[in-house]
Amino acid sequence: MPYLSAGIDSGDTAWLLAATALVLLMTPGLALFYGGMVRTKSVLNMLMMSFVSIALVTVVWLVAGYSLAFGPDAGGLGLIGGLDHLGMHDIGPTSVTGHVPTLLFATFQLTFAVVTAALISGAIADRAKFGAWVAFVLVWTLLVYVPVAHWVFGTGGWIVAKLGALDFAGGTVVEVCSGASGLALALVLGPRLGFRKEAMRPHNIPLVVLGAGLLWFGWFGFNAGSALGANGLAAAAFLNTQVAGCAGLLGWLIVEKRRDGHATTLGAASGAVAGLVAITPACGSVDLMGALVVGLAAGVLCSFAVSWKFRLGYDDSLDVVGVHLIGGIVGTLLIGFLATATMTGGPEGLFYGGGLGQLGKQAVAVAVVGAYAFTVTYGIGKVIDRLMGFRVSAEDELTGLDLTVHAESAYDHGVVSQGAPHVHASALAQALAHAKNRSSAE
Amino acid sequence: MPYLSAGIDSGDTAWLLAATALVLLMTPGLALFYGGMVRTKSVLNMLMMSFVSIALVTVVWLVAGYSLAFGPDAGGLGLIGGLDHLGMHDIGPTSVTGHVPTLLFATFQLTFAVVTAALISGAIADRAKFGAWVAFVLVWTLLVYVPVAHWVFGTGGWIVAKLGALDFAGGTVVEVCSGASGLALALVLGPRLGFRKEAMRPHNIPLVVLGAGLLWFGWFGFNAGSALGANGLAAAAFLNTQVAGCAGLLGWLIVEKRRDGHATTLGAASGAVAGLVAITPACGSVDLMGALVVGLAAGVLCSFAVSWKFRLGYDDSLDVVGVHLIGGIVGTLLIGFLATATMTGGPEGLFYGGGLGQLGKQAVAVAVVGAYAFTVTYGIGKVIDRLMGFRVSAEDELTGLDLTVHAESAYDHGVVSQGAPHVHASALAQALAHAKNRSSAE
Amino acid sequence: MPYLSAGIDSGDTAWLLAATALVLLMTPGLALFYGGMVRTKSVLNMLMMSFVSIALVTVVWLVAGYSLAFGPDAGGLGLIGGLDHLGMHDIGPTSVTGHVPTLLFATFQLTFAVVTAALISGAIADRAKFGAWVAFVLVWTLLVYVPVAHWVFGTGGWIVAKLGALDFAGGTVVEVCSGASGLALALVLGPRLGFRKEAMRPHNIPLVVLGAGLLWFGWFGFNAGSALGANGLAAAAFLNTQVAGCAGLLGWLIVEKRRDGHATTLGAASGAVAGLVAITPACGSVDLMGALVVGLAAGVLCSFAVSWKFRLGYDDSLDVVGVHLIGGIVGTLLIGFLATATMTGGPEGLFYGGGLGQLGKQAVAVAVVGAYAFTVTYGIGKVIDRLMGFRVSAEDELTGLDLTVHAESAYDHGVVSQGAPHVHASALAQALAHAKNRSSAE
Repeated sequence: MPYLSAGIDSGDTAWLLAATALVLLMTPGLALFYGGMVRTKSVLNMLMMSFVSIALVTVVWLVAGYSLAFGPDAGGLGLIGGLDHLGMHDIGPTSVTGHVPTLLFATFQLTFAVVTAALISGAIADRAKFGAWVAFVLVWTLLVYVPVAHWVFGTGGWIVAKLGALDFAGGTVVEVCSGASGLALALVLGPRLGFRKEAMRPHNIPLVVLGAGLLWFGWFGFNAGSALGANGLAAAAFLNTQVAGCAGLLGWLIVEKRRDGHATTLGAASGAVAGLVAITPACGSVDLMGALVVGLAAGVLCSFAVSWKFRLGYDDSLDVVGVHLIGGIVGTLLIGFLATATMTGGPEGLFYGGGLGQLGKQAVAVAVVGAYAFTVTYGIGKVIDRLMGFRVSAEDELTGLDLTVHAESAYDHGVVSQGAPHVHASALAQALAHAKNRSSAE
Repeated sequence: MPYLSAGIDSGDTAWLLAATALVLLMTPGLALFYGGMVRTKSVLNMLMMSFVSIALVTVVWLVAGYSLAFGPDAGGLGLIGGLDHLGMHDIGPTSVTGHVPTLLFATFQLTFAVVTAALISGAIADRAKFGAWVAFVLVWTLLVYVPVAHWVFGTGGWIVAKLGALDFAGGTVVEVCSGASGLALALVLGPRLGFRKEAMRPHNIPLVVLGAGLLWFGWFGFNAGSALGANGLAAAAFLNTQVAGCAGLLGWLIVEKRRDGHATTLGAASGAVAGLVAITPACGSVDLMGALVVGLAAGVLCSFAVSWKFRLGYDDSLDVVGVHLIGGIVGTLLIGFLATATMTGGPEGLFYGGGLGQLGKQAVAVAVVGAYAFTVTYGIGKVIDRLMGFRVSAEDELTGLDLTVHAESAYDHGVVSQGAPHVHASALAQALAHAKNRSSAE
Repeated sequence: MPYLSAGIDSGDTAWLLAATALVLLMTPGLALFYGGMVRTKSVLNMLMMSFVSIALVTVVWLVAGYSLAFGPDAGGLGLIGGLDHLGMHDIGPTSVTGHVPTLLFATFQLTFAVVTAALISGAIADRAKFGAWVAFVLVWTLLVYVPVAHWVFGTGGWIVAKLGALDFAGGTVVEVCSGASGLALALVLGPRLGFRKEAMRPHNIPLVVLGAGLLWFGWFGFNAGSALGANGLAAAAFLNTQVAGCAGLLGWLIVEKRRDGHATTLGAASGAVAGLVAITPACGSVDLMGALVVGLAAGVLCSFAVSWKFRLGYDDSLDVVGVHLIGGIVGTLLIGFLATATMTGGPEGLFYGGGLGQLGKQAVAVAVVGAYAFTVTYGIGKVIDRLMGFRVSAEDELTGLDLTVHAESAYDHGVVSQGAPHVHASALAQALAHAKNRSSAE
C-alpha cells in the first residue's frame, strides 16, 4: 500500500484529521454567527462572503500559499518560504511532516487561512461589492496571510525562530491579522448608511448563538489540533481553550450586568468568542489559572472595545476589531506575563519569574503583524476600490444586498392565508421585480 | 518535549479528544433543542440558561468538582473524593489516567457535568430569574452532581465499587440526576401562567430538530467516549447508541400514530432523545438486541410519561422528567434484565441467566440517586427562592423573559415595506421601551 | 478486558469512530438542507423523511443488510453476500475487520445506507404519504442499496473484484443509486401541483446553508473515513474532498454569474454539494489537479442539469437527479481519465497513460448501477402506489403536509401585540382545526 509511511503515527493522524474537519466547520459557523447579526436584507450576502472565502483561499493555498508559507525559508531571512512546493509540487500521499501526512498538515493549515479571510468580512457588512470581495480575498491571502503565517508557523520564520515570540495557534497570524485588516477595510469602505443613527439590530439571535456554538466546537480543533498530535499538550490546550471561552463569557456578562443592567445573549456569544480569540496564541504556554486570566481579561476588555467604533466613527460592523484585534492583542501580550515552563518547556512570563524579555518579544510580534496587516490591507483595499469600486450604490445598500447582488431573499414564508397576501410576500415581489429591472438594464 | 508521557496511547487519546469536543457540542445542541420548543418571547432566555451553565460548571469543576468527584476516595466510604486536586493541583500536561492525559480525562468528565446542569433548565422554562439560575447551577453542581459522579464514576465510589450496579455512561449520574432535579425545581417554581389552559406551542420546530441532530451526534462522544479508548467496547457502545436512538424514535412515533392518528416531528425528536437517554447507562452492558429493547421501551414509555405533568399538575415544561428521569430509570433498570457477559466481562441480567441480583442493584442505584437528587435540589431551590426569589414577576413572565431579563428579542425582521412598519417591529419598540423603563426604575 | 483485540489499531479506530459520527451527522444536515428549500407548509415533512430513514435503515441494516452486503459472497458470483451475519450473528466487540472493530466497520457502512435513502426524498418533496415513504425505505434499502453495496464495497463484489472499476467512497453506491432512484420515484408520483407554473421558492435559505455546511463537514468522514484508517490515503482523500467542494462552488457560481447576472447563495450551496458528490468515487484515485477538474466539471454540468426537469417535465423537486445522479456520473467517469497510480497503486486513467480500459470499466459500472437502481425503484414505487397510494390528496398537498400529515406547523411566532392576533396565528388556528376535523373524520 503506497500510503503507509514509516514515521506516521496513526493516533496523531486520527486527531489531526478530526481537528481539520473541526476547523473547516468554523467558517460555516462564522457565516451563521455573522449572518444572524445583520439585518434580514443582507443575510445571504454575509453567508456568501464566508462561503466563497472557503473556495478562494483553498485555491490560492494549493497554488502558491502553502509553498510560500511552509516551504523552506527563502534566503534564511525568515520572511517568506520558497517556491519548491508551488502547486503542491513534490508532496504526495506518502510525504510526512512530524508524525502526520504532509497533505494533512497542509490541509490543517489551509483551514486557518480560510477562516482568517472570512473573519474580515464582518468589518464591512452590508455594503461591499461581491466581485470586489472576491478579488480582495485572493490578493489578501497571498500578500498578507501567507507571509505572516511563514513568520510565525513556518520553519525559520523570524517571529518564532529569530525573535522568539510565542504564538501557539495563531493569535497574531489569525486574530491580529484579521482584526487589523478588518479595521483597514472598514476605513476604505466607510460606514454603512445610517451608521450611528439607526439601530441595526441582529435579525436572528438564535442563528448567532448557533454560529457561536459551532465556532466554539471548532476551536477545539484549532487550538488542540495545533499540538499536531494526540498528547498531553493537546489535552492542556483543549482545556485551556474551554476555560478561556467560559471566562470570556462570564467577564462580558458581568460588565454588561453592572453597566447596562442586563446580561444579553449577544454578550454571552461575543464574550465566549473573545475568550477563545485571546487563548488562541496562549493555549500552549499558560496553565489553567493563566487561561482563566486570559479569558476574563479578553471578555472584559472586548466588551468595552466594541463601543469604540461609535465614538471614533469607523464602522467595524460586526466587531472584528473589538473582538479579534483586541482579543488577539490581549492574548498575545499576556503570554509575556503568564507563560510557564511547564507548558513551554522553557520561556517564562513576568509573573513566573521570566522577567520582561518575553513580554517585549510578544509586543514586537503584535506590533509588526498588526502594522503590516493594516498597511498592506489598506493598500489592497484602495487599489481595488479604484479599479472596480469596493462599495455598492446607496440605492442597492438601502434595498439590501441579498436582492440587489444575489437576486435572492433569505426568507419566504409566503402567503399564509387564502385571503390577502402577507405583506412580506408582496414587498418581496416588488423588490424582486426591481432587482430584475436593474439586472436587465445593466 | 514535556508533554509526551509514557503510558499515553495516541489512538485512545485521539478518540477522547474528539469525543470531548462532541460532548461539549451537546450543550449548544440542547440550547437549540430547548430554544425551539418555547415561545418566541423566551427563546433567548432558554439559550442563555444552557450557555451560562457551560461557563459556571467549568469553573466549579476546576476549582473543586474534579477533585471531589475523581480525587482519591475520602475515608474509603465511597461517598466523596478527596481535596488533593482542588484547583487541579498536581495535575499537569504529563499526568496520565488510563491511557490518556489526565487533563483530557478531567475535561471529558467536565462536559458531562455541564450538560447535566443545563438539562434541568428545561423543567423551569419561561419563568426563572437569571440570577437565581446562576446561583442554582453553582450550588447544585457541587452538592448534587459532584457526589453522585463520585459514587458512580469515581474510583471507589459506592454505587459501582461496593454495590456493584452498572452504569456505563451516566444513566444515574446524568439522566436520573437531571430528571429528578428538574422535577424538584418545577415544584419549587410552580407552573407557568396559563399552564393547562393555553397551548404553548414550540415556536420553531426546525430549531428543535437541529438541536436533536446535534445532541444525537454528540451522544456518540458521550457513550462511545466513555470507553476511554478507541477499541471494540467503544465500537459496541457506539452502535448500541445508534440502535437505541432509532428504536426510541420508532417507538414514540408508533404510539403517536396509533393514539393520535399522526406521527409528529416533535415526537420523532423526543423519541430519539428518549432512546439515547435510556441507552446511556446500558450501552456498555447490552448487545444489539438489548439496545433495541432499551430504545423501544424508552420511546414507548416516555411518550406516555410526558403527559403525566398535565394530570398531576407539575409544569415540567420541556419534559425533563418525562424523557430524562423516566428514560434514565428505564435504561438503568433494563440492565438488570439485559446485561450480557460478552459486554460486561462478568455480570449478567435476568434474561441472560444472571438472576435477580443485578436488577436489585440497579434498582437501589436508581432509587438512591433519584431520592438524593430530588431532595437536595428541592432544598437548594427553596433556599434560593427565599434568599433572592427564583421566579420572575407575573408581568415579566407575560411580556416574556427575553425583553424583561435580557433586554433583547430573538428575531427582528424589521420594516419590510416603505409604507407602514410591520406590526412585529412596532410591538418590539414598545416592549423595548418598557424594558428600558423597568431597568432605569430599578 | 474482553474488547481489546489483537489486530486493532487504536489510531485507525479513533479516526473511524470520529468519521462514523461525522457521516451520521450528514443525514440531519441533509434534512435541514432539504427543509430550507421547501415551502413553509411542508418543512417538517421534509425533515421527517430524513429522520425516519435513519431509524428504518438502521433496523434493516442490522437485521439483514449488513450480512447481505458484507457477508462472504454467496456462490462467488459477486452479486450478493451470504446470510452468515443475519441479525449481526457472530459479530461481537472483539471481532476485527482490517485494523478496526467489525462493529465499527458495520456502523460506518450503515451510515452510508442511511444517507443514501434519505437523499431520495428530495425528489418527491411536498407530496408523498408518510406511510408510503416508510414502506419504500424498508424495501428499497434491501432490494436496491444492499446489493449495489455488495457489488462495490463487499468482498468479491463484481464491480470492483471482477470488472475492476474504481469507486472509493460510493459514487455509484450512494450518488448514482440515490439519483437514479429519485428520478424513478419522481416519475411514479408525478409533479407537484403548480409545477412549472408557480415559483416554489425556498422558505429559509440560511437553513439550506447550515445544512450544506454540516454536509460538507460530514463529507470528510464519508470520504477520508473510507480509507478505513488514519494514514496518507485518508489525508489525500480529505484534501481532494475539500478541493472538489470548492471547485464545484466556484464552477456553479461562474456559470450563474455569466448566465443570469447573479451569483446566488443557493448556487453556492448546490455547487459545493455537486463537487462533493463528484469527488466521492474519485477521492482515492486522483491527485489534487484531478480533484480540481472533477469538482469544476461537476459544478458547471450540474448547474445546467438542474433545469432539465423543467424542460422534460419530471418534478425532481430538490434536484437529486441534477446534483447526485449527474454529479455521481461525472465523478465516476472522470476516474477513467484522471486516475493516477500514485493514488491507486496501479490502475491509471486516459490522461495518465492508462488507455481507454479504465474509462470503459467506469462506464459499465455507472450504467449497470443506474439502470438497476432506476428499474427496481420504479417497480417498488409502482407496487407501493397500487397497494397503499404513494401520493397525498390534492387538498392535503395544497394545505401542506405539515398540518395534514403531521398535525404540526414548523413555526409559530404567536400573537405579537396585545391588539389583533397576527395573521399567521389565526390562519394557523384554522388550519389546525381543519387538520383535527380530518383526523377525527378518518
